[in-house]
Amino acid sequence: MTRSAERLSESEMIAWRTFMEMQEVLRGRMEQQLQADSGLSSTDYTVLVALSEEPTGQLRAVNLAQRLQWEKSRLHHHLTRMCQRGLVERRSGEGRSSLGAITPEGLAALQLAVPAHTREVRRMVFDRLSEQQVQQLTDISRAILDGFDRDLPS
Amino acid sequence: MTRSAERLSESEMIAWRTFMEMQEVLRGRMEQQLQADSGLSSTDYTVLVALSEEPTGQLRAVNLAQRLQWEKSRLHHHLTRMCQRGLVERRSGEGRSSLGAITPEGLAALQLAVPAHTREVRRMVFDRLSEQQVQQLTDISRAILDGFDRDLPS
Repeated sequence: MTRSAERLSESEMIAWRTFMEMQEVLRGRMEQQLQADSGLSSTDYTVLVALSEEPTGQLRAVNLAQRLQWEKSRLHHHLTRMCQRGLVERRSGEGRSSLGAITPEGLAALQLAVPAHTREVRRMVFDRLSEQQVQQLTDISRAILDGFDRDLPS
Repeated sequence: MTRSAERLSESEMIAWRTFMEMQEVLRGRMEQQLQADSGLSSTDYTVLVALSEEPTGQLRAVNLAQRLQWEKSRLHHHLTRMCQRGLVERRSGEGRSSLGAITPEGLAALQLAVPAHTREVRRMVFDRLSEQQVQQLTDISRAILDGFDRDLPS
């Protein structure tokens, strides 16, 4: 009825469903924990981490969008809301480029959020996995990501 | 400075970041592919799959919410939009319960969407992994999910 490229084997189907369910539950729990403990969404958290890791605390909006795999308009709207809450600010960069920068308030919010979030990640994920499985998860994730790089040479 | 429960080891940190990046990219690509090939969001697709797998083509809204790990209000709004597009309909169940049911149009949309989506999942994920890795991914996902079950006995 369907070509084999359009079917998954029994074991692939099980892997896919279990993986998708795990992802969904994990995202939901992380979102709840972050909101409850620090009032940040997981998106806020991701943006703050990305900016805080830059030596200058800032990134060009286009690079931030790329790094987060978001469309420019999604990032624009999200940054606007984070600016209103004082977590980030917009600066103008070289030429007509726009920069997002973490504020002292944003850095303080992130530093408050990190310990509880890390504890939760450890409890939800790493306490459940053997050292070998941690390495396997890295290798599997890397193999899938490498496939995307080959898709879209940049 | 921080307690060890609040830190990840070097290899855990690498696993976590690689895994989160993989998830983000995968979600983005699946969303694009589904929209482009079938005009469905990944949320639409997930709802249609869940309903289509029921012998009656319907599920109580509360069970659907549970299965998708969504809050009731999120599901309510999403079902309303899917109703407006004719993909699902609301029915009243026993007592005051509300049911979501797949329509013939919804089933047709799903059947059109499945082959291209499955091909993409194969290309993005399973073509990149060995048989052993498929099994590892299942085991890792199951171990994390089992941890959640112990968290919240239901």
